[in-house]
Amino acid sequence: MTAPSQLAIVPFVSVDSMMKLVLSVGLETFLTELAGYVEEDFKRWDSFDKTPRIASHSQHGVIELMPTSDGQMYGFKYVNGHPKNMREGRQTVTAFGVLADVGSGYPMLLSEMTLLTALRTAATSAVAAKYLAPPHGRTMAIVGNGAQSEFQALAFKALLGIDKLRLYDLDRSASEKCARNLAGMGFQITICNDSQSAVEGAEIITTVTADKQYATILTDNMVGTGVHINAVGGDCPGKTELHRDILLRSSIFVEYPPQTRIEGEIQQLPADYPVTELWQVMIGGAPGRTSAQQITLFDSVGFATEDFSALRYVRDKLRDTRLYEELDLLADPDEPRDLFGMLLRAEKVPA
Amino acid sequence: MTAPSQLAIVPFVSVDSMMKLVLSVGLETFLTELAGYVEEDFKRWDSFDKTPRIASHSQHGVIELMPTSDGQMYGFKYVNGHPKNMREGRQTVTAFGVLADVGSGYPMLLSEMTLLTALRTAATSAVAAKYLAPPHGRTMAIVGNGAQSEFQALAFKALLGIDKLRLYDLDRSASEKCARNLAGMGFQITICNDSQSAVEGAEIITTVTADKQYATILTDNMVGTGVHINAVGGDCPGKTELHRDILLRSSIFVEYPPQTRIEGEIQQLPADYPVTELWQVMIGGAPGRTSAQQITLFDSVGFATEDFSALRYVRDKLRDTRLYEELDLLADPDEPRDLFGMLLRAEKVPA
Repeated sequence: MTAPSQLAIVPFVSVDSMMKLVLSVGLETFLTELAGYVEEDFKRWDSFDKTPRIASHSQHGVIELMPTSDGQMYGFKYVNGHPKNMREGRQTVTAFGVLADVGSGYPMLLSEMTLLTALRTAATSAVAAKYLAPPHGRTMAIVGNGAQSEFQALAFKALLGIDKLRLYDLDRSASEKCARNLAGMGFQITICNDSQSAVEGAEIITTVTADKQYATILTDNMVGTGVHINAVGGDCPGKTELHRDILLRSSIFVEYPPQTRIEGEIQQLPADYPVTELWQVMIGGAPGRTSAQQITLFDSVGFATEDFSALRYVRDKLRDTRLYEELDLLADPDEPRDLFGMLLRAEKVPA
Repeated sequence: MTAPSQLAIVPFVSVDSMMKLVLSVGLETFLTELAGYVEEDFKRWDSFDKTPRIASHSQHGVIELMPTSDGQMYGFKYVNGHPKNMREGRQTVTAFGVLADVGSGYPMLLSEMTLLTALRTAATSAVAAKYLAPPHGRTMAIVGNGAQSEFQALAFKALLGIDKLRLYDLDRSASEKCARNLAGMGFQITICNDSQSAVEGAEIITTVTADKQYATILTDNMVGTGVHINAVGGDCPGKTELHRDILLRSSIFVEYPPQTRIEGEIQQLPADYPVTELWQVMIGGAPGRTSAQQITLFDSVGFATEDFSALRYVRDKLRDTRLYEELDLLADPDEPRDLFGMLLRAEKVPA
């Protein structure tokens, strides 16, 4: 083939390369370092162009584009959400993303983001909990033990020292899978028979179920004072996990209000219901947890800056590895105005 | 490496593969067939989710995402526009795109679109001219002889029988490059010293310059009655090519008014200035050319459905070839809920 110029080459991180990268860095180290990038970018919130994600809804799910830019780099993620996929042997959520140079508009990185999204979601949850959860808690309940659950557990272990897990899922085999995957990683794990028993004694409650519906994973009576709720699963219109009364007793923290009001648990509340932006807490502009009795709630939906942080982290880590392929993605003729000539000359080169 | 499941694989058309595909089909055939897909999709305009492109502007240029869907397939294009790039040996415009299955949200095709955009832009121009240009014209002026010029020439030859070209560019070497590239392809080519002389005797005037500014490539006195103007270069805010008086004398046809009013030549006109949507002309819902004296103007800015048509065409053509690579883009564990387990098991497989 015609050798493409170096300007035309975009590094590509496949699923296989991403797995190798994560494992070579180490899961907890990866999550901790990634959380550092997420936190750093939250703390420079005003540097980012922010816009709610651009969603294309259909009967079976949604396809979204989530762009953002800090003026130097531009990133976007393609992500779908199709709850029915699981029944067909596919992932509910798959994703890939691109980081580009704002100065030239040229892509700098194409990466799988199904795994990376799971990692950044867990890292973001743990960063939020660092600011909001009761101090010294070591027990987390995880309600919903699907694809995201182990990542949450490990991120909370790495950043907050969580080492006791109380698992519950409607499908007990999911809890067993979660416990099996986390075996030998330093957790004391209890599989519970219902949500009620899962949350007993837990300082942190993570809800991360996948069904696209208004569900009530937790009812008001289950949630005692002083806990931190990490609500991950309610993340699109029509999909919530918590009873409204829990929200009304909680101090609610969100990533980006215009998006969370559409997609988060707070879609159940009036549009002007007071919430606090997480980045404000991080820079000391708003209080986080103010008392031991307070219920704090991180109404997580996932925001474009978190994907940007994740792509930025992966790009930095790649510098020391060869865990990427080179894609001939960009046409780059020797003479920029001669795109057509490049095409014609391709004919002359034997395949 | 771990063999990824077939569900995880996305076909990728590199620049090299695209060039081979175009040349194996044949340039004029490719443009003609592609124009057929573009026209087909324009004629089912109401099937598409349409939204203006999502632009991220910076000092040096713009990065855009252009999504659309027909309910069965979803497509988007990433495209940048950085006029300064040319001075740095890069393309002003580079692009890639993705076609996905709406039912599952899984990407079906990733393709370079720098070349493909040049091809679809030319094909769309020629389709529009088929409905709007004076019949039996054989002479086209091309003002601006950069990367898009030869594609325009060939599309108009293939669809309308244009075989006389009058070229003008501020930089004479660009015209010479264009003439050289088109040599032996059946054109009679004249390189002109100014726009005025280029448009003399031309039934169709194509303007396709690249500078990002309000320019006046054509003044009112240059444009005689009865011509068709194919205005390709004025395609973003602050970038126009035609004097306003020409617009006022023309019947104006556009792709998607909400986008064209921001990006096209008609950004010079009031927001309620009457224009006709091209798809309406194609289905017979609005008149195209109604008299021999009329000046018709296709104020082309490029719309997401055209990229969708192009991706759809490439995907169909690929069925018979092996002109693609297989990308391990999607994480697809055997058990969908066991993303973490897939990651853990990757460790066990030797690299």
